[in-house]
Amino acid sequence: MKADVVFTHAYVLTMKGEGVGMIEDGAVAVKGNRIIKTGTHEEVMKVCQTEEEVDAKGKLIMPGLIDAHIHTGLAILRGVAQDITGWMEEGLWPFMKHVTDDDHLKGSMLNIIEGVKAGTTTFCDYDSNMNELAENYAEIGAKARVAEMVNEIPKDIGDLPAGELYPFDPAIGERKLQNNIKLMDKWHGAANGKVTCLFGPHGPDMMSLDLLKETKSLAEKYDTKLHMHVCQGDREILQMEKRYGKRSIPFLHEEGFLNDRLLAVHLTEATKKETEMVAASGASMVNCSGSIGIIDGIVPPVLEFTEAGGLAALGSDQAPGNNCNNMFNEMKFAAILNKVKRKDPAVFTATKALRMATIEAAQAIGLGHETGSLEEGKKADLVFIDLESPAMSPVISKPVRNIVPNLVYSANGSEVADVMVDGKFIMKDRQILTLNERAKIKEANEAAEGLSERAASQFTAQHSPLVAMMERGEL
Amino acid sequence: MKADVVFTHAYVLTMKGEGVGMIEDGAVAVKGNRIIKTGTHEEVMKVCQTEEEVDAKGKLIMPGLIDAHIHTGLAILRGVAQDITGWMEEGLWPFMKHVTDDDHLKGSMLNIIEGVKAGTTTFCDYDSNMNELAENYAEIGAKARVAEMVNEIPKDIGDLPAGELYPFDPAIGERKLQNNIKLMDKWHGAANGKVTCLFGPHGPDMMSLDLLKETKSLAEKYDTKLHMHVCQGDREILQMEKRYGKRSIPFLHEEGFLNDRLLAVHLTEATKKETEMVAASGASMVNCSGSIGIIDGIVPPVLEFTEAGGLAALGSDQAPGNNCNNMFNEMKFAAILNKVKRKDPAVFTATKALRMATIEAAQAIGLGHETGSLEEGKKADLVFIDLESPAMSPVISKPVRNIVPNLVYSANGSEVADVMVDGKFIMKDRQILTLNERAKIKEANEAAEGLSERAASQFTAQHSPLVAMMERGEL
Repeated sequence: MKADVVFTHAYVLTMKGEGVGMIEDGAVAVKGNRIIKTGTHEEVMKVCQTEEEVDAKGKLIMPGLIDAHIHTGLAILRGVAQDITGWMEEGLWPFMKHVTDDDHLKGSMLNIIEGVKAGTTTFCDYDSNMNELAENYAEIGAKARVAEMVNEIPKDIGDLPAGELYPFDPAIGERKLQNNIKLMDKWHGAANGKVTCLFGPHGPDMMSLDLLKETKSLAEKYDTKLHMHVCQGDREILQMEKRYGKRSIPFLHEEGFLNDRLLAVHLTEATKKETEMVAASGASMVNCSGSIGIIDGIVPPVLEFTEAGGLAALGSDQAPGNNCNNMFNEMKFAAILNKVKRKDPAVFTATKALRMATIEAAQAIGLGHETGSLEEGKKADLVFIDLESPAMSPVISKPVRNIVPNLVYSANGSEVADVMVDGKFIMKDRQILTLNERAKIKEANEAAEGLSERAASQFTAQHSPLVAMMERGEL
Repeated sequence: MKADVVFTHAYVLTMKGEGVGMIEDGAVAVKGNRIIKTGTHEEVMKVCQTEEEVDAKGKLIMPGLIDAHIHTGLAILRGVAQDITGWMEEGLWPFMKHVTDDDHLKGSMLNIIEGVKAGTTTFCDYDSNMNELAENYAEIGAKARVAEMVNEIPKDIGDLPAGELYPFDPAIGERKLQNNIKLMDKWHGAANGKVTCLFGPHGPDMMSLDLLKETKSLAEKYDTKLHMHVCQGDREILQMEKRYGKRSIPFLHEEGFLNDRLLAVHLTEATKKETEMVAASGASMVNCSGSIGIIDGIVPPVLEFTEAGGLAALGSDQAPGNNCNNMFNEMKFAAILNKVKRKDPAVFTATKALRMATIEAAQAIGLGHETGSLEEGKKADLVFIDLESPAMSPVISKPVRNIVPNLVYSANGSEVADVMVDGKFIMKDRQILTLNERAKIKEANEAAEGLSERAASQFTAQHSPLVAMMERGEL
């Protein structure tokens, strides 16, 4: 067979099969936007003729990482909402009211750049104004599986006394739903198929049952998934009990939402039984260790979910309270937090974390046929790791191979040298090729400056604990 | 006053006082190996004449980080001992027997390079063959506070049935003690004072009481500290109970070890009462979140220790089971693990973590007069952070400043652009200036290859769970 390029003499982490599918002295052959062959150097070169052979000695070639839950627009507010009780009410919302579409768009680009530099090739972005945000993906050349976040909540919700039912505004709900439909019509399969779409109900507490059901019908009509927060906090459970007299998961079960069309995010407040109910239904879960650990001090029940047979992915969630969007960080956190939760160092391995950021994530978000592993016929979403960087050294191959544990526990994302999406390099030698990174970051910085000026006086007047920290010289 | 160089227009994180001592539009003036002035640009330039003014706009200048407990030589075995029960017996020890002094020296250099690149300027290295390892610090130009790890344990201890008392070999103990004395005589104050020494009893279970007492007398004689593992695992407690009929902390209390000369590392198995006893004694603690979380699934009682008034520092411990030696990682882990331990997002802040990696670490290891904060008269140990890197962007200054939370939760160490120790740059633009990084890493890789070949057959015969993972294709 004829390849455009073959990368040779690398360690190749295919993520094929039940383990990690490691090949030593391996090669990956790419033609157009697809992988046409993986194997040892010898196996691949025996059957492939190629235009270009690239010696990748000293590199690990692995599937691009998948961030299965990220609100990229929120990066404009990175670092304003952690280390307090009530991160949303006391940290995020007072700023949110002042965020413009332009701030949001620039924050999103910053976040996508951060992710790509740390090896993320597929972003399951779940945010508002997604029709605009999708342009960022087209520009940088990354893969996106996007949903408009649909709710009926007015922007000044942060001023509501705690415990009061959110008011719903059907006009808001209708506008957002229409945005999601427009997204589907405009972007599903766009950018040579690199952008695809989901429906994105914000949470069972964030909208009327009618609107929630409408998103479900639409997901069925377009044969796609629902990306939805489920049991994301005690706030949600309180709203559900107050509105419907039921907790989220029994409610969703009764209304027919628990099935393989659902990507259930967080499950922070789910009981063991509820977690198992979701797993048994065929729905997938996204676990966001960094965000939920930092903002809530909770380890979500991802281990319980996978033990019950569920398919789980990892997500970095959002920058005002995580605060980074780096899947190396998520893999590390998922493993260590579950080890300490069970007081058992063997209960959550590096391999498990890595699968949840690659092949199992791809399956969970409905892209298992196309990405998440290096297999013939899949798209060439490749990440090249510098094995000669300090954190990945030394490489030991026998009697125990140390690459996977070091990738998960030692690497931090800066070891990612090159990133290819759909057969095209979008980053080489740590430089993004498709846009001017520094210029984009400067734009985000300028937008954040304006935003914080607009938010300042009101925020300060609210006596947030963060303001008290500022006054004590702690920030 | 006359400076050699003034860095201007930076954010300056002095770590002076009770908080973080942040100065906006700040400057740092350096003369020789010391800081002579910090303040706003205006304040500093009013009183300083300088040879050279360097515009550091877009940078954060902060104190170099302190790794208060690290076994650098073990980096030669990075990634061979995690994700299992009995990491030491089943992972580390089967390899340890085959480690030569040369392997160890090369692993150490790799580890030091990793640390410096992630902003560590002071390494509290605690390992064997420290007289040789200290040469690595002199070569790279970093600051080291080193101890020879003194024990009386034969090298093939891994073959002992679990639960049996370790045999002591006084000849080994004497040789190691002499090494520590030699270290003190040769290296204490060497490299222009950048290298200083401690005594390093390996643990109360690892040596006879006589030898332990000898290290104490020597620490008093040389007016220095004891760097010692205390309650580092259930293994230690079992040995202590079997040998002395007492747990480690009551034993150390009775023998007069609990005082401000003790740097007690881990306290993994300490009860709340024991933890408080150590804190009240004036001894300091080193908390190693990454290592203890990964190898034991435990969150050490650092929060309980500081709540009881104790002074604590952070350490990265060792690479076969952590697996990185990066203080950004340790700050993140310390905060998030304690948040989930207490189910309280406010209980351990970014600021607390940062203090434990800078000024409080310096005080804990006995270098508070010289490093850990940017203050007039202290040594110029400076780290320059690129605030325009994605993970540190955007910078928001009001109403809430986001730099500290983003430094702790979002940065991963690769944002460190430049590193100065004692007034001299040892890294600029992410390139180490004092040695050839790639050549050193290559040397470590070659040594590890030989080592793993020597260890392979015996390791495989032991049916370690790691070998089973290899066979299942999980590594």
